[in-house]
Amino acid sequence: MAKLGDEVFMAYTTYSVIVIVKMMLMSLMTAYFRITRGAFANEEDVALKPVAERKKMLQTHPDVERVRRGHRNDLENVIPFVMVGFFYALSGPALSTALLHFRLFAGCRILHTIVYVFAFPQPSRGLTFLAGYGVTFSMAFSVLSTALRL
Amino acid sequence: MAKLGDEVFMAYTTYSVIVIVKMMLMSLMTAYFRITRGAFANEEDVALKPVAERKKMLQTHPDVERVRRGHRNDLENVIPFVMVGFFYALSGPALSTALLHFRLFAGCRILHTIVYVFAFPQPSRGLTFLAGYGVTFSMAFSVLSTALRL
Amino acid sequence: MAKLGDEVFMAYTTYSVIVIVKMMLMSLMTAYFRITRGAFANEEDVALKPVAERKKMLQTHPDVERVRRGHRNDLENVIPFVMVGFFYALSGPALSTALLHFRLFAGCRILHTIVYVFAFPQPSRGLTFLAGYGVTFSMAFSVLSTALRL
Repeated sequence: MAKLGDEVFMAYTTYSVIVIVKMMLMSLMTAYFRITRGAFANEEDVALKPVAERKKMLQTHPDVERVRRGHRNDLENVIPFVMVGFFYALSGPALSTALLHFRLFAGCRILHTIVYVFAFPQPSRGLTFLAGYGVTFSMAFSVLSTALRL
Repeated sequence: MAKLGDEVFMAYTTYSVIVIVKMMLMSLMTAYFRITRGAFANEEDVALKPVAERKKMLQTHPDVERVRRGHRNDLENVIPFVMVGFFYALSGPALSTALLHFRLFAGCRILHTIVYVFAFPQPSRGLTFLAGYGVTFSMAFSVLSTALRL
Repeated sequence: MAKLGDEVFMAYTTYSVIVIVKMMLMSLMTAYFRITRGAFANEEDVALKPVAERKKMLQTHPDVERVRRGHRNDLENVIPFVMVGFFYALSGPALSTALLHFRLFAGCRILHTIVYVFAFPQPSRGLTFLAGYGVTFSMAFSVLSTALRL
């Protein structure tokens, strides 16, 4: 890395790529459920199916919608983590504190996906969401405490 | 900050964190409306309610959908601002010009949320959207004028 | 640019701004289809229409929904590209390799939008999606191979 000497930045890079890749895998999971459940969103996606089945395959399916909600929740949480984490990594935190933030966030978001897709009973999903949410807020607070220029 | 000497970068950091935090608060607002309006998206979220009420609570509610549209609009606009703003901050703009861009964007997006959630008459929402949109385009144009490497 | 000497970073900046601007143009395209198809999402958006037409104009329209799916697909793919591309640009790739990644991604995403909006037969949309998706994964793999700090 260009900033090889900075261990915090390297840890930030590693965990960011991990959670982004996890988020991107939701696209494949959506495709998997669309195909196995026969639930598509575009007419051109069912053009090769028998005519009689086409209309039926253009409906929504609960399993597909569940994965899509999980994917959107990732967009709403993983992207802010990567953006705020960048400012946080530049603000000079202790390596151990930074690793605690990054590991907690990555762990929570991976658990969040499992808990969401398999529909575990609440409050499991709420807790994994809130813990990750809190990590990003903690980093945001730390950044604004270090450097505020309004 | 690692780039302490750079006031433009510090201002960019400050306003970015502010608009990201504002965007993240939409999640709490969605939760608030889901609970007060009794409109949930997942079966496990209503598992503790009386059986007779469950099905009714798995429907959509206009207030929840409104906040969710506002949240999505943030994803579509706040994230591009933070990403383009990064390149813009590195392209060496005058501090006063940069602050004008950042303050205008942050102000517009905060107003946009208020106007959206309380359903103010148009063109209030359209104007706050367009002003923020224009700020990001102005920064994008400035970046491509300074550094173009195709 | 602050990092003027670094051609890879300049190329990264250029292609990132291009795909972000392309993504943002989806908002205008959505507005265009909402107005020409008469399909709005908010009551305040149709307040100036004749009372008899209002309710009809608050429904969804396939053309609007199609553009919105394209926009969401951009959020799911363009944003990860810009974020992973940043780490990739800092990891010191050869300029020619980096340009190959950036150009392929930008080309695929522009094609993806055309193919989606005009509903070209499959597998055109699937292929443009997968090629862009593969570029981001290739960069993610390259970053984690260069710098892994768990």
